[in-house]
Amino acid sequence: MPKGTKTRTSILNQALDLSSEVGLEGLTIGRLARQAGMSKSGLYAHFGSKEELQCQVLNAAADRFTKVVLTRAFSQPRGLPRIRTMFDGWLAWGEQEFPGGCPFIAAAAEFDDRPGVVRDVLTEHIGRMLEMMARAARFAVDEGHFHPALDPDQFAYEYWALLLAHQHYCRLLRNEDTEDRTRRAFESLVARAAHPTR
Amino acid sequence: MPKGTKTRTSILNQALDLSSEVGLEGLTIGRLARQAGMSKSGLYAHFGSKEELQCQVLNAAADRFTKVVLTRAFSQPRGLPRIRTMFDGWLAWGEQEFPGGCPFIAAAAEFDDRPGVVRDVLTEHIGRMLEMMARAARFAVDEGHFHPALDPDQFAYEYWALLLAHQHYCRLLRNEDTEDRTRRAFESLVARAAHPTR
Repeated sequence: MPKGTKTRTSILNQALDLSSEVGLEGLTIGRLARQAGMSKSGLYAHFGSKEELQCQVLNAAADRFTKVVLTRAFSQPRGLPRIRTMFDGWLAWGEQEFPGGCPFIAAAAEFDDRPGVVRDVLTEHIGRMLEMMARAARFAVDEGHFHPALDPDQFAYEYWALLLAHQHYCRLLRNEDTEDRTRRAFESLVARAAHPTR
Repeated sequence: MPKGTKTRTSILNQALDLSSEVGLEGLTIGRLARQAGMSKSGLYAHFGSKEELQCQVLNAAADRFTKVVLTRAFSQPRGLPRIRTMFDGWLAWGEQEFPGGCPFIAAAAEFDDRPGVVRDVLTEHIGRMLEMMARAARFAVDEGHFHPALDPDQFAYEYWALLLAHQHYCRLLRNEDTEDRTRRAFESLVARAAHPTR
């Protein structure tokens, strides 16, 4: 990696950790400059504007998601094994990868009402994740793990609902049963996907 | 209502609408003063501090929730009719009652990492809502609408997951199928609560 790219990547990773706690809006150039030991003008030279920095942070989050969650999931056979590995990875992603939980979920609450380029980048990433989940469900149908009558987008919706609830119960309510509850709900979702008439 | 209480209620309702869009942290005394046509010192006289204002806004949200959602739900017979009415009310609450969606869900993302009195008030309100949902599920068991083997807290968890996903799909992704997806997932949840072996 050339030195400029390395510096940029290192700054973005610090920005990502910081934003998971203070939000993308709380991520000011000044605050990040202090943390990265750089001047504000140096940071502006890298990112141009706060909006551009916010977009780059979301892209860095997506890159890290690919590295820590997707790569492992895609090493598994198509269908249910991959869906299970992805779910485990997703839970660990929200709990262990960041001091402040999943950066996409945090950014969603901040930007759902703010039209603009940051919101566009965010919805593109989340939309892509949901499309990937629906595709994984389609593969599971092809492999005979799920029933042919399954609606893959409905599966993705309910899968996503569990991830949102998991983060809420873990991070906000600090409920000790959370992992157990989430896994029970996930097993029920998978069982219904396999036998929708049950 | 005495005049002081009236003014206070009116300010809190404005603060509540504003905070659903800009977040509880974006709700500065200065911004609220401009909107309410009051001086900052006048607002400080009412609320003392920003934290106190944030707590009062959450309490005002809970009061409004009781008025527009719970009162109607509690006019229904115990058990499934009440659970259905509550669910409808909850969807309308997030979609129609506020310019920026459910204030509790918005505040959750902001305050899950910030220990303090605002977070305490928030988790108390959300915890109470979930406890209420679990109790409603217990009543549904008593009435014979749900199966005796149902875990009421698991029901409340999955119910809450759907409300979170609904808000995400509606407000962030602007997905046109959202209401249909949420209702299908809700019917599936209710059917499983009635016949857990299915």
